[in-house]
Amino acid sequence: MGRLVMKFGGTSVADLDRIRNVARHVKREVEAGHQVAVVVSAMAGKTDELVGYVEDASPDYDRAEYDMVVSSGEQVTSGLLAIVLQEMGVPARSWCGWQVPIRTTGMHAAARISAIPPENLLKSWDEGRVNVIAGFQGISPEGRITTLGRGGSDTSAVAVAAALNARCDIYTDVDGVYTTDPRIVSKARRIERISYEEMLELASLGAKVLQTRSVELAMVHKVPLRVRSSFDAPDSPLQVMEDGRGPGTLVCDEDEVMEEQVVTGIAYSRDEAQVAVRRVKDKPGIAASIFGPLAEAGISVDMIVQNVSTDGFANITFTVPRKELRRAVEVLEREKINIGFEGLDTADNVAKVSIVGIGMRSHAGVAAKMFRTLSEKGVNIEAITTSEIKVSVLIDEAWLELAIRALHSAYGLDAA
Amino acid sequence: MGRLVMKFGGTSVADLDRIRNVARHVKREVEAGHQVAVVVSAMAGKTDELVGYVEDASPDYDRAEYDMVVSSGEQVTSGLLAIVLQEMGVPARSWCGWQVPIRTTGMHAAARISAIPPENLLKSWDEGRVNVIAGFQGISPEGRITTLGRGGSDTSAVAVAAALNARCDIYTDVDGVYTTDPRIVSKARRIERISYEEMLELASLGAKVLQTRSVELAMVHKVPLRVRSSFDAPDSPLQVMEDGRGPGTLVCDEDEVMEEQVVTGIAYSRDEAQVAVRRVKDKPGIAASIFGPLAEAGISVDMIVQNVSTDGFANITFTVPRKELRRAVEVLEREKINIGFEGLDTADNVAKVSIVGIGMRSHAGVAAKMFRTLSEKGVNIEAITTSEIKVSVLIDEAWLELAIRALHSAYGLDAA
Repeated sequence: MGRLVMKFGGTSVADLDRIRNVARHVKREVEAGHQVAVVVSAMAGKTDELVGYVEDASPDYDRAEYDMVVSSGEQVTSGLLAIVLQEMGVPARSWCGWQVPIRTTGMHAAARISAIPPENLLKSWDEGRVNVIAGFQGISPEGRITTLGRGGSDTSAVAVAAALNARCDIYTDVDGVYTTDPRIVSKARRIERISYEEMLELASLGAKVLQTRSVELAMVHKVPLRVRSSFDAPDSPLQVMEDGRGPGTLVCDEDEVMEEQVVTGIAYSRDEAQVAVRRVKDKPGIAASIFGPLAEAGISVDMIVQNVSTDGFANITFTVPRKELRRAVEVLEREKINIGFEGLDTADNVAKVSIVGIGMRSHAGVAAKMFRTLSEKGVNIEAITTSEIKVSVLIDEAWLELAIRALHSAYGLDAA
Repeated sequence: MGRLVMKFGGTSVADLDRIRNVARHVKREVEAGHQVAVVVSAMAGKTDELVGYVEDASPDYDRAEYDMVVSSGEQVTSGLLAIVLQEMGVPARSWCGWQVPIRTTGMHAAARISAIPPENLLKSWDEGRVNVIAGFQGISPEGRITTLGRGGSDTSAVAVAAALNARCDIYTDVDGVYTTDPRIVSKARRIERISYEEMLELASLGAKVLQTRSVELAMVHKVPLRVRSSFDAPDSPLQVMEDGRGPGTLVCDEDEVMEEQVVTGIAYSRDEAQVAVRRVKDKPGIAASIFGPLAEAGISVDMIVQNVSTDGFANITFTVPRKELRRAVEVLEREKINIGFEGLDTADNVAKVSIVGIGMRSHAGVAAKMFRTLSEKGVNIEAITTSEIKVSVLIDEAWLELAIRALHSAYGLDAA
């Protein structure tokens, strides 16, 4: 018996049959004695339809009006789920973001949650109801509807859990977080427990199972977060135990991750492109002259490598998101005189592979093993970045699957 | 220059091209110097889609959740119209019912507007914006979304006009109110001006151009109401003049209707069925024993005729909406012992024809002319009801078109 927030994404509520399946999951938890709040996304495809209308109305649309239109999708799902729950004999009511209220900043289409006063939801719980909350949306200080940006429903769910001092189960179309993408490595294993820090790295490095912001929020507020499948039979005995064992993957404090691996997971991203700025003067301020204009243009730069030659010139190489490559080149060409480079080389056939694990902090040689493994397979490394708990390398995209499989095996992640 | 509320129904905002057409109508009025509020319905078909979801979710749905789901349709249209107006250089913002706020009773799916504080809309006007308001919806005393029932957007528009002390133009798919249905009488004429009272009778007797409640509200608050076509070219010179002349039909105070006809319009309804209760005791309380149970069952009874025979028995005949006929018979059969009738006869091939005109008050013989005209055509009258400004007769549905044409001609309504 406890407080529980359950979050269901768009594919889990794609039609009324699936909404009924969601309701059975909710009913099971209510019957187990939990106080339940449910956060729902729009029915799959609805948000795209609504965004399509907005973009058709004007390419240069007002984001406040975008929020007005697009937030309606979650509103529909929350009402329908409340009706289906009532039909199953489970008292329930729906809540729009403004009704809860989920207070956000006024940055329309990309708002951040600032506060969730829990009184209304707690009162509704006291009255014995399941609270069904429209995800992805809130209300600005000016009283207008805001949205949190794509995938924001995960963030809504974690924020609601934090406000209610509840744990949070994220139901999705996979049955947990895997050591790597099972479509690439058939021996990928489901991870039983993973620390917030590792999950944050995996999410930001390309694993799509959770929104980065929702993991951050869970970490800050210490919300126990479980990723599990909405396609499990709702009445299956896949219950969460008192000790935290259960279906899916538990994202939790490092202390609670019992069996610590050196490397917990391997993430990858094909969304990479490389730019090499050839023969710039190796002098103070040269990096600023390149990365300042890119930052102003809103282009995020990731891995940076600088090779200094002996004649006072340097080559600076970095990566940008693949769809920003053309714009990055435009910005640099415009700044060519200021920067003073000889030429630009670009490549969009690169990919990033990252190993992540809190065990790296206490184990030496983890990165060296990565480089050796790739070298043995003849994979050339274009660039490297590291943090306390991750190592990322940039490689030719053609070698991506090969590299992931080799690393998965080398770090002992393969399923028996 | 003045304050104007413009209302556009579902077919007028069915897709983005039509929404752009609506925006051009709005822009024309803004450029003429008006302060404009626009009330919009959901895009045609959307409300049916949403109602379909709700009914699929549960045949016995919670009406508060119905409102949550169904109100989203108008929310989408209001956001889209605001974007399109901005794109055309007309400053605009959208409003949900709860944002205005449009305060209503808590009777979900059939709420009534209780108050519209005008401050927010006036402030937005002062800032130079067009207010685009989602019709059909409001907020209950409990802070939940309500809807006003089908066709409620007309009512929203009139209520907003009353709150803002504005006139109200209802844009629809016809170019005004006609003397009768032009599909039946090709010589039907558009009425230039009609009094609230006459419009109210026509609307409640079957003319579908305006919601009865919206006319009531306009009458009480003396809101000048114009019915006009949204398919007119938006830049046509069909302007409303200072003296009230203009396109469509003006619904206004009786005093302002200049050329008074004896009969202004002819309405009809095929939605009628007749029940005859045969041989009941002619004693006090007999009517109550029949109509009490029907009222409790929510069946509205219209035309009632009682024929008393000399032997102390009577036949009581009345009409009900055609789709309620079966239920009415069930109720009466259940009460057979209490009522004490010999048998029931029913007919669902009846129709009601009504003549309406404030001139009847001061002209004698109007009803007599109706009966004579129908008699000359061999049309038998089953029942009659009258009010100060209307006469309705029940006839065999087969004679309906014939009767309407004959009356239209007899009262001098045919176009030259």
